Amino acid sequence: MSNTQLVPLFNLDQNNREPKIMNGFYQKDIISVSQFSKADLDYIFARADEMAAMSKRWGTCDLLKGYTLACVFYEPSTRTSASFIAAMERLGGKVIPITEGIQYSSVSKGESLIDSMLTLEQYCDVIVMRHPDIGSSATAAKYAHVPIINAGDGAGEHPTQGLLDLYTIKTELGKIDGLKVAMIGDLRYGRTVHSLTKLLSQYDVSLRFVSPDTLRLPLDLMNNLIDSGINVRESNKVADVIENADVLYVTRIQKERFTDILQYEEVKDYFEITPELMQSAKEKMIVMHPLPRVGEIHYKVDRDPRAAYFRQVQNGMFVRMALLAAVLGQA
Amino acid sequence: MSNTQLVPLFNLDQNNREPKIMNGFYQKDIISVSQFSKADLDYIFARADEMAAMSKRWGTCDLLKGYTLACVFYEPSTRTSASFIAAMERLGGKVIPITEGIQYSSVSKGESLIDSMLTLEQYCDVIVMRHPDIGSSATAAKYAHVPIINAGDGAGEHPTQGLLDLYTIKTELGKIDGLKVAMIGDLRYGRTVHSLTKLLSQYDVSLRFVSPDTLRLPLDLMNNLIDSGINVRESNKVADVIENADVLYVTRIQKERFTDILQYEEVKDYFEITPELMQSAKEKMIVMHPLPRVGEIHYKVDRDPRAAYFRQVQNGMFVRMALLAAVLGQA
Amino acid sequence: MSNTQLVPLFNLDQNNREPKIMNGFYQKDIISVSQFSKADLDYIFARADEMAAMSKRWGTCDLLKGYTLACVFYEPSTRTSASFIAAMERLGGKVIPITEGIQYSSVSKGESLIDSMLTLEQYCDVIVMRHPDIGSSATAAKYAHVPIINAGDGAGEHPTQGLLDLYTIKTELGKIDGLKVAMIGDLRYGRTVHSLTKLLSQYDVSLRFVSPDTLRLPLDLMNNLIDSGINVRESNKVADVIENADVLYVTRIQKERFTDILQYEEVKDYFEITPELMQSAKEKMIVMHPLPRVGEIHYKVDRDPRAAYFRQVQNGMFVRMALLAAVLGQA
Repeated sequence: MSNTQLVPLFNLDQNNREPKIMNGFYQKDIISVSQFSKADLDYIFARADEMAAMSKRWGTCDLLKGYTLACVFYEPSTRTSASFIAAMERLGGKVIPITEGIQYSSVSKGESLIDSMLTLEQYCDVIVMRHPDIGSSATAAKYAHVPIINAGDGAGEHPTQGLLDLYTIKTELGKIDGLKVAMIGDLRYGRTVHSLTKLLSQYDVSLRFVSPDTLRLPLDLMNNLIDSGINVRESNKVADVIENADVLYVTRIQKERFTDILQYEEVKDYFEITPELMQSAKEKMIVMHPLPRVGEIHYKVDRDPRAAYFRQVQNGMFVRMALLAAVLGQA
Repeated sequence: MSNTQLVPLFNLDQNNREPKIMNGFYQKDIISVSQFSKADLDYIFARADEMAAMSKRWGTCDLLKGYTLACVFYEPSTRTSASFIAAMERLGGKVIPITEGIQYSSVSKGESLIDSMLTLEQYCDVIVMRHPDIGSSATAAKYAHVPIINAGDGAGEHPTQGLLDLYTIKTELGKIDGLKVAMIGDLRYGRTVHSLTKLLSQYDVSLRFVSPDTLRLPLDLMNNLIDSGINVRESNKVADVIENADVLYVTRIQKERFTDILQYEEVKDYFEITPELMQSAKEKMIVMHPLPRVGEIHYKVDRDPRAAYFRQVQNGMFVRMALLAAVLGQA
Repeated sequence: MSNTQLVPLFNLDQNNREPKIMNGFYQKDIISVSQFSKADLDYIFARADEMAAMSKRWGTCDLLKGYTLACVFYEPSTRTSASFIAAMERLGGKVIPITEGIQYSSVSKGESLIDSMLTLEQYCDVIVMRHPDIGSSATAAKYAHVPIINAGDGAGEHPTQGLLDLYTIKTELGKIDGLKVAMIGDLRYGRTVHSLTKLLSQYDVSLRFVSPDTLRLPLDLMNNLIDSGINVRESNKVADVIENADVLYVTRIQKERFTDILQYEEVKDYFEITPELMQSAKEKMIVMHPLPRVGEIHYKVDRDPRAAYFRQVQNGMFVRMALLAAVLGQA
């Protein structure tokens, strides 16, 4: 059943996997928004611009040819996994999608997160990981020998969402400094609000926080903002902030957060974005939402050119393309 | 952590995504068999022939390089999703498979079908969608900005199955006009029978309908056929039609359709295709089945060259390749 | 909606799918380790070496461009499916991953394994299959027209695991003949132990079997070894064998195998590999494990250069690349 003579399959003179651009991102983990300086953000956003231009002209390219991503989702998140898969595929990289089974197979056999990472890294060059436990990405990053990109670790962080939110503000409005950004909804538990707030605190912005009394921004975040000298103000109604806002960042208010359902019914209308409300908004401003929405933004607003939430989704893909290429030394 | 000097990653002089062939399919949704004229069918089938030839000689090609498909299955269908994934991959396109989790993640957070489509289209150029609700594909198509291909919408339509069935008849027998086609099994609820019947009604064919009394072709379909001047006839036994049939299109009869199980046992043998029965069939004819089968065709028939049902599966891939390339302006 | 003039899409003069290397593996099924002669093993291992070198220099290549793999997992196994997917993608082939839904869709409609194979082979050139039933791969191979690679059939075989284990021994230690290999843990039910033992019996090795009394190597395997003239010896403690072992092949001992939990607690420490125990081991030897582990090897051993179990994982990908390329006539 064998061949005596073995003709070589490959001529391996050339090494195609030398890093081309060894800046500060090369081989780094992406765990938290806190690791990004303003210069880092400028860099990634400039690369994301290039990714957007490439996608429009070519659709896909070969920048990450020769590289493989393991996309490991310990809890489902269609939107985020689809975004990362699309990002890697558009760059010509390969993807090993592990969105299913992981809880039924290895993990149910008792395999630890660390062993899973040490195993999967044998097949790939970078790992994107979503996990329900806070700190799990940092743990994975500590042990893995390939870069780990945190795609959400429970109540912890979801840094690429924060980056895409900030990138959306910059692309849509052309700048960040000088803007008035209103955060709306559940500001207490909203992970995306916390990340974006941290990122914005590096800029010269005014922040407005609009929430029910029981869902106000956590104390420590608020104090940090005040210490940074950021102009902040809280309110209970979108109507209070809409006229001057450059950005309305809308998030869901979950019924379950209220012990008294009557209280929920009482306040929820103060936070819904309607076409009528949008008449008071500036002509050049944007409405954002991390999605999915459940009634916080009326469907009729979708036709308003200021509705940026679906463009925001696409920006996520561009930012993730930039990050993947950067940690692999190709951008 | 950043680079002061930014060398551009891409030279984007060339636009690789101009549509090359802008016929009537370009950017169109594929929702129903009713939207296909005879000329359309001729066109798609000619393209499917090319896809078959390419697959045999090359396996894959670069026709859809630069394009991405989101393959969204709200209910599992291994065969259909595998067929579409294989189709896109063979054309050099990228695939974002979303077969799992969608019901557990975004949808369980209350996201609407429309929002899901408006989100996913940010990552891709065309969406294939299967959904348990009738009319869901049409709804998706109304709102989405990329072409939607209906891969089955519950009790509604499954147009690519109808097309591949008709394509199989044409490739196997060289023509459609003049043929005698016998439809067998559950003609009342069988979605594939209804679609194929509609498509065949554009041709000069004779149709024979063989079913239990309680599972006869719906009245409106039958009347439409009669109004179109199609030669039709109904029967209760395959034995009545097998001698003259050019095509036996066999479908499953589900036990659950019978309130009286004895009644089921009584009639089911009239509809089973056996090697003995095949002896009465013409030398040049074909047996088809949309699969999966559960005993309607005896395994021994598989060896009969007239058994076309597995070739029919492959034809599905070729037809889907043709459709994907056509709606993206590349065929 | 159609075009009167049909410009051909492809110039199909060239056939890209001619087999280039038609040795004994071309179009063969890979069902059992028993089908591999020593010459076969040499051949596959030499090809695996090339795959490793290619992966390090290029990451991916085009060797299997034009070929498609259907990766069908009737039971989840993240590690194995990820390994095969990575293997095919690194070779430039396409993958149809079917890890989910198969039990909920076709199979729940009553489709037989054989029909599933006869269907899926219409889309692809090779099928990798995992199934909970012993003998299922052989059945699939009997009916399918494309090569079937057994990725585990229940209590049956998992031949690629056996091959990667042997390949690891050879790459890590430079040879197989003359080695002392100790198998540790559940030797009665451990599928990987049985496969590796069978493969090793073709070589001039000494085997040590270390297990609880109730989990000793099955009688027939032991007798075969003795008949082959292999030097064998059994023991109850790793401490008995560690000093002379070139290879410690460690497996899990499942609590569930013991009717008396006290008995389990009593013996389990005899089989744990600790840093202290490793001090008695040779300087040049390796510790292997098919993974996942659940405490049989202490985490601190991971830092020991003799810990080969994660390199073993990567070797699996290289061996699978070699097999895929060989059965498709490209290696």
